[in-house]
Amino acid sequence: MGAIASQNSRSLAALSETEIIRRIVTALSDACPVFPAGPGGDCAIFENNSDQKYRVSSIDSVILSRHFDLTCPGAKAGQKLVERNLSDLAAAGASPSDALLSFIAGADVDSDWLEDFAHGAGRAAARVGLKIVGGDVCRGTPGTFSATLAIQGHAGRILTRYTCKVGDMIFVTGKLGGSIYGRHLEFRARLKEGQWLCGQTAVTACTDLSDGLAKDLPGLIGSRCNARLDLNALPISDDAQALAKADGKPALEHALQDGEDYELLFTVQPSQADLIAATFQKAFPKTPLSQIGKIEAGSGEVFSLSDNQRIQPLGFSHFG
Amino acid sequence: MGAIASQNSRSLAALSETEIIRRIVTALSDACPVFPAGPGGDCAIFENNSDQKYRVSSIDSVILSRHFDLTCPGAKAGQKLVERNLSDLAAAGASPSDALLSFIAGADVDSDWLEDFAHGAGRAAARVGLKIVGGDVCRGTPGTFSATLAIQGHAGRILTRYTCKVGDMIFVTGKLGGSIYGRHLEFRARLKEGQWLCGQTAVTACTDLSDGLAKDLPGLIGSRCNARLDLNALPISDDAQALAKADGKPALEHALQDGEDYELLFTVQPSQADLIAATFQKAFPKTPLSQIGKIEAGSGEVFSLSDNQRIQPLGFSHFG
Repeated sequence: MGAIASQNSRSLAALSETEIIRRIVTALSDACPVFPAGPGGDCAIFENNSDQKYRVSSIDSVILSRHFDLTCPGAKAGQKLVERNLSDLAAAGASPSDALLSFIAGADVDSDWLEDFAHGAGRAAARVGLKIVGGDVCRGTPGTFSATLAIQGHAGRILTRYTCKVGDMIFVTGKLGGSIYGRHLEFRARLKEGQWLCGQTAVTACTDLSDGLAKDLPGLIGSRCNARLDLNALPISDDAQALAKADGKPALEHALQDGEDYELLFTVQPSQADLIAATFQKAFPKTPLSQIGKIEAGSGEVFSLSDNQRIQPLGFSHFG
Repeated sequence: MGAIASQNSRSLAALSETEIIRRIVTALSDACPVFPAGPGGDCAIFENNSDQKYRVSSIDSVILSRHFDLTCPGAKAGQKLVERNLSDLAAAGASPSDALLSFIAGADVDSDWLEDFAHGAGRAAARVGLKIVGGDVCRGTPGTFSATLAIQGHAGRILTRYTCKVGDMIFVTGKLGGSIYGRHLEFRARLKEGQWLCGQTAVTACTDLSDGLAKDLPGLIGSRCNARLDLNALPISDDAQALAKADGKPALEHALQDGEDYELLFTVQPSQADLIAATFQKAFPKTPLSQIGKIEAGSGEVFSLSDNQRIQPLGFSHFG
């Protein structure tokens, strides 16, 4: 058995992303702690003995031809790498501290472009006080480029997935869908918003949207609740509307299924929902906030409020 | 300007690895702290307020066709990834705590091979109490596979490069050269030895050998000392001898220039050198230890003791 599959049925393409990760976690065995210290959340979470009670960590990559194309300026790709990672910290309500940066680059990668990439990453990091403390450059296959950032953060309290309760209201920041029109390269992680939410005890769970609402919402609620979405309340972006006109797919579907929104999706105790919404908007007048549904008893499914139809967990998939 | 160079002169192949890293660090600008909190050592180093006074971090990858070939069992490649990272911690004398694991894999990568990779990584991590707390799987170009591990560790005292003094004696563990005959996949990081050395105040500086002694020794001493090597004292491995017979290059050259030894190279105060050597051998009777030279005043060059010839910093290069 070699690294590359001799038959299609044995290749990663034959498996879902969830199944690939499940197999890796199972194989890692004793080396892999259970959630929230291990895999399953936006960050891994550790308890400290210091003022900053929690340390969190997360890792994410950008890959040429996958997360940006050949014509993308280096600085934008570098900024995207940092902001993707910051978005995971935002979902936990943590503050960034330090990160390691690893490149795997073909020998034909443009050296000025790579420098520009580092400029973009450095500016995005410096903007939020993140220190890039080390890294690595390895030679990869010609024509390929990837960069991986492993980030550490800290917080006094922490937000996680799977901790919402029946009756909680569901909120989302920003406008959804159509990020492919450019927002996937231009977004800023909702770091300040996440830290603010983390300070509110009425906020019960949080994640960031990377694979699309229809896929990330089940990931937020876990297997012991259902979610009921008010599709009329979904904040549909202008880009999703424009994309709908171009490809004929409803804008609502783009808002539900498009990846790379990098918005925060969170739940709030029902008695505090109006207060949280009002004080959030006062703190962040430029960040749209929408109440889009509520948590019910169930087993990890999402339904539409108006017609009771099940909303399939379709969204961006890395494999399959 | 796109990601892939339109002319060879603009490609990474036209630059040395040192120059590529220098440009990245410069471009990262304010986001990049100076050594030892930033790049330049085996790990980045942070001061804590707790018992474990220091936190350290490091990142390293393994790449198909670069660090292992198509026929390499997954478990061996996974073990190598973990041991490479542990070797950086060993050089700092730190203990491993947690790590993040990121895969970039073509859709044609064999799913059983990937599971086997995770088995090997998990076993190597569990052996030393390292927890793999999170990660990421992304789709890359068909036919390619890479895995990156970002590791965190801690220590009460820490070993670094650049801190040796004139007169110090130079030691190296193990036998050098010819790792290509299999040791590059089979080695175990000298974690216990590194932690032991870290407890000895007479040990003044330490690094691990990854690119070859002739290249890593200048990296240990920095620009304010020279090193004088007793070439007759170099511990030449049987593999280096066998490789010399096969390719006609002197075994000594293999011991000096071959990469991936993953041994510890360190300096000791001259008055304590014999004592350290004796107590080390008592603590680690199975780990070869050789005194191979001494530190002199200078500017970062390495000379041979017997004939005063300069030893060029030739070794494994990731680019160029």
